[in-house]
Amino acid sequence: MEPKLIHWEKLLDFSKRALMKLGVAEKDAWMVADNLVSSNLRGIDSHGVSRLARYVDGVKSGYIIANAKPKIVKESSVLANVDGGNGLGQVMGTYAMELAIQKTQKEGFGMVTVFNSNHYGYAGYYPLMALKHDFMGVSMTNSAPLAVPTFGKNAIIGTNPIAVTAPTKRNKPWVMDFATTTVPRGKLEVYNRLNKTLPDGWATDETGNVSNDPARVLKNLNNLLGGGLLPLGGAGELFGGHKGYGLTVMVDVFCAVLSGSNYGPHLVSKKEGNVVHPRIGHFFMALDPEYFVGKEEFKNTMDAYIDELKNSEKAAGQDRIYVHGEKEFEMQEKREKEGLPLDAKTVESLMGIATEYNEPIEFMN
Amino acid sequence: MEPKLIHWEKLLDFSKRALMKLGVAEKDAWMVADNLVSSNLRGIDSHGVSRLARYVDGVKSGYIIANAKPKIVKESSVLANVDGGNGLGQVMGTYAMELAIQKTQKEGFGMVTVFNSNHYGYAGYYPLMALKHDFMGVSMTNSAPLAVPTFGKNAIIGTNPIAVTAPTKRNKPWVMDFATTTVPRGKLEVYNRLNKTLPDGWATDETGNVSNDPARVLKNLNNLLGGGLLPLGGAGELFGGHKGYGLTVMVDVFCAVLSGSNYGPHLVSKKEGNVVHPRIGHFFMALDPEYFVGKEEFKNTMDAYIDELKNSEKAAGQDRIYVHGEKEFEMQEKREKEGLPLDAKTVESLMGIATEYNEPIEFMN
Repeated sequence: MEPKLIHWEKLLDFSKRALMKLGVAEKDAWMVADNLVSSNLRGIDSHGVSRLARYVDGVKSGYIIANAKPKIVKESSVLANVDGGNGLGQVMGTYAMELAIQKTQKEGFGMVTVFNSNHYGYAGYYPLMALKHDFMGVSMTNSAPLAVPTFGKNAIIGTNPIAVTAPTKRNKPWVMDFATTTVPRGKLEVYNRLNKTLPDGWATDETGNVSNDPARVLKNLNNLLGGGLLPLGGAGELFGGHKGYGLTVMVDVFCAVLSGSNYGPHLVSKKEGNVVHPRIGHFFMALDPEYFVGKEEFKNTMDAYIDELKNSEKAAGQDRIYVHGEKEFEMQEKREKEGLPLDAKTVESLMGIATEYNEPIEFMN
Repeated sequence: MEPKLIHWEKLLDFSKRALMKLGVAEKDAWMVADNLVSSNLRGIDSHGVSRLARYVDGVKSGYIIANAKPKIVKESSVLANVDGGNGLGQVMGTYAMELAIQKTQKEGFGMVTVFNSNHYGYAGYYPLMALKHDFMGVSMTNSAPLAVPTFGKNAIIGTNPIAVTAPTKRNKPWVMDFATTTVPRGKLEVYNRLNKTLPDGWATDETGNVSNDPARVLKNLNNLLGGGLLPLGGAGELFGGHKGYGLTVMVDVFCAVLSGSNYGPHLVSKKEGNVVHPRIGHFFMALDPEYFVGKEEFKNTMDAYIDELKNSEKAAGQDRIYVHGEKEFEMQEKREKEGLPLDAKTVESLMGIATEYNEPIEFMN
């Protein structure tokens, strides 16, 4: 079956209107909608509008507060800690990244943490904002406990992504953005739908042994029976699984221990049958190369480095070396022109929202 | 054969005296010696006194300048870029980390980059310095090109380590410190000595295919024939090799593109037969949790998180979940008491230096 196509502006508008019906202010609704649609445009469909229904549910069940506003609780010329008031993660994230950028405009540097927040979309969205000013950008967030520590049985740490950007002159900017587990949960769902076995090193079963059965791992995760995603580097220490485990905890330290938010096993929206705020934590940083080597030299060197990576000899059977962000910029160009493809499940979920809130949604086919 | 044992203070004193004979000032010589011996104490023997001979050679051949002094070329209240003058990496690193700590004492934050430097020992040494002030610490460095980018054939990126520390109250501090490749070169050397085959995902041969032959990979690396270490996550993208490749480049961006130092393929000490300065770059950061959640709460939460990780249920067949730094603190306690074990090759290299510079070295057995 052909996927349903939608123009990104129509999807942005629909998502915004739906959120406004939930009591979200227009500007805030735009921030969430822009983050979701930007994720789809870049090919990161796992963090696109397929998530809108979850935010709607979060507001309806009460763990996301639709009209919460960010509040600075501690601040210096370069640092700040922000209370997210258990509002929408994208609203808190966009505000905090803007604050880090403002500080960087004045001082060359800004670092802002957020506590009491919710899912903030894809991590790369925020450091991309820094590129408009020719700044470097960094963002990290912790997330629901889906991963196991090295030698552990239970999923008590998140897939905690790290995103870093660096400006360029000729080439597309360098944009690194990934979960610190080998793969995210969405990848297991894809394998499950296709009835494919998982490669070793992706996930463990309820005993803590490596599992090749996506259905089993997903069922265990949903029912908290043990097992889960493996950190980048896989099981044990032979392939560096302890390094991925370290990165995951590092993200938690910067996002939650430092800001005073929930960490690791505590990032849940339901506890003993009751709805609770997950209290997710985020971290944002911007940095002006002018305070170091200088903006011009920084951008020229990034271009030279990217060229050298791309032009380097390829391994047998390979015809291209990618630099980070390249695939996503190409996808964005294509999807802006051709429309965003949405799978049947996402279309169904959007149609449900359209009906419930009496907001029309307009597809291209 | 039993390893030779030496008391760490004797080894520190010997290393310091040897460096002073090369024209290194006493305080600078102590910095290098302390870094090397501290690495041995913590069990990171690959970065311990076995490296002393390389520094001696570096000074003798001219790519390390024994009496170079760090010089700040750009500075703000929280940021600085330091010219390392092609001196000893530990001297530049210790100075730069101290500068970041001084800034943090005044402003809650400090970030210092260094260009024109040399090998700075083990990355964890510097953020450990921040712990004495109950600050978080970060350090990264780029390094000689021994690793291949995802889908690439040639070793044009480094093993570029990342080290991050977080203070605690009851537990040992959290100390993460690792190379961004699956394994460092030293691990291949160990496998080669033991005639063991390499696991898939550690290294590639001269065609860019995964290799299980450590001798072949090491020979290729020494002769620049292609192939090398694989980034964390291994070959291709199936196990997240592109994530490790991203981390390696990220370290290069912070350490070298930002500071104005050499990056990736250019970090060599010999070019067309001539000795050249490798111009290594480093990155240092310190951060006072008092400016965020507060020092006391930060340390208490770190303790609680560490306890939860350690007390979590173990995978089948495992009886312990480690937290980062724990193994090294235990090793340090043991080695401070029992002495440092040195392998035959390291003893021989130290004896050579002892003879050449007429500096006695005193072993325990």
